[in-house]
Amino acid sequence: MIVYLNKNYSFIEDACISPLDRGFLFADGVYESIRTYNKKLFHYGDHLERLKRSLAEIKIVFFDFDSIEKIIYTLIEKNKIRNEALVYLQITRGSAFPRSHKFPESNINPTIFISVNNLESRKDKLNKGIKVILQEDLRWLRCNIKSTSLLPVVLANQKAFEEGAEEAILVRNGLITEGTHTNFFAVKEDTVFTAPLSNLILDGITRKIVLELCSQQKIKVKEKHFHKDELKNFEEFFITSTTKEITPIVQIDDWEINNGKSGAVTIKLQSAFTELTEKY
Amino acid sequence: MIVYLNKNYSFIEDACISPLDRGFLFADGVYESIRTYNKKLFHYGDHLERLKRSLAEIKIVFFDFDSIEKIIYTLIEKNKIRNEALVYLQITRGSAFPRSHKFPESNINPTIFISVNNLESRKDKLNKGIKVILQEDLRWLRCNIKSTSLLPVVLANQKAFEEGAEEAILVRNGLITEGTHTNFFAVKEDTVFTAPLSNLILDGITRKIVLELCSQQKIKVKEKHFHKDELKNFEEFFITSTTKEITPIVQIDDWEINNGKSGAVTIKLQSAFTELTEKY
Repeated sequence: MIVYLNKNYSFIEDACISPLDRGFLFADGVYESIRTYNKKLFHYGDHLERLKRSLAEIKIVFFDFDSIEKIIYTLIEKNKIRNEALVYLQITRGSAFPRSHKFPESNINPTIFISVNNLESRKDKLNKGIKVILQEDLRWLRCNIKSTSLLPVVLANQKAFEEGAEEAILVRNGLITEGTHTNFFAVKEDTVFTAPLSNLILDGITRKIVLELCSQQKIKVKEKHFHKDELKNFEEFFITSTTKEITPIVQIDDWEINNGKSGAVTIKLQSAFTELTEKY
Repeated sequence: MIVYLNKNYSFIEDACISPLDRGFLFADGVYESIRTYNKKLFHYGDHLERLKRSLAEIKIVFFDFDSIEKIIYTLIEKNKIRNEALVYLQITRGSAFPRSHKFPESNINPTIFISVNNLESRKDKLNKGIKVILQEDLRWLRCNIKSTSLLPVVLANQKAFEEGAEEAILVRNGLITEGTHTNFFAVKEDTVFTAPLSNLILDGITRKIVLELCSQQKIKVKEKHFHKDELKNFEEFFITSTTKEITPIVQIDDWEINNGKSGAVTIKLQSAFTELTEKY
């Protein structure tokens, strides 16, 4: 695998992050995951805009945005990506000595790391749906920043895996926020519900697209928090993300939903989403 | 500077963390800061025990604890540390491909990184005290794990620096928890108050020593949360940590405490602490 790190292309085995990198010492960095459809980066502008916003929020000064898109396509070529590509991009504040919580006083260069991989097919999961579990939302209070401070979601996602689920849906003070790396949606009486944008969730790009598709399909939307005890009042559930697209949820903890079948609104949105990506 | 990384000693410039290290991608790791007095590691056993607890909490399997102490003393020698040493030790879950939130399914080797540096003298600050600011506690809800998911405290500490303060004291729902990398104490009527141990604060080793010194000095202790609006009812404040020892606070935001002078109980505890470390 050939990756990009600080102006250099190299084999991943030769790519070298300093132990003094603040990404390693403090999780002082942000990231994006981007994918292609028809070999073309999907909503690249939205990802770039969110990246800039994340960087601004934590005051990492990075200028060289214009070259990123070309680097990504170069990596796709160098790695001979056959199908669609999954791009991972991380920017940290850079390396500084001595270790000190506050930002380094002298100007340092941010670290930029980019990798691309073949996207695995998820057709089976998009058709059959997945199991999720509920977990307490232990994350920090700025989940709208796409930072690498990800230990809480690592632990929640691992717990899901151990319980035979694909994702953990997070619950803060009884209210459902989102998944560990997905947004969460519920459907009731042909209305789609999802948590409102705030510091408690990430403004997912697939989330935004789904809300636009709802509008096009004349499906009502309510962006409001709901309590985990209300879940049984809903008929359908799904998660969204760049890689998970629109994945139906057919089981929450021990509750099998709708006899383990995807709901009609979910399927309708999946079709509209597929149409959108096929012609992208 | 010569550092230790995964069984190798090398110059820091040659030490190489993979961009696939989960410490870099997910802050999936824990750390300790340890110091020497009289060239001897101070409360090494306590640090090692806390390290083991942190690792157990996030289920990183690491065995080779027995060699760590010797590695540290070797680094002190190799780096010709003249005065006292500050040791930084970090263990992450290791490198894995592909990037995936849940733990890697195959066994991977944890990454262990250790560095030592000369400790800077803090005599001036120990005598004159420091300014702190109050900041909202945005951290995750497992602050008792000494993890590298430190972005929230990086931002709070930077804010302190920008306001001419050395430390930010964190406030969650109005209640004072601790500093960004220190424990916080307040004194009223010869009684020392500090937040109780819970998932909201780190069980600081200097905190524990201070509570023991209070007991020896017949100073009453109350481990209870107090509200930021109650601060003005207290007469003295200080922070503690491995590097900050017992540092008096002489200003909180715009409030100059006791005409900018350290309080009597703080000074008494500092003396007892110095006596303890001098004969360590």
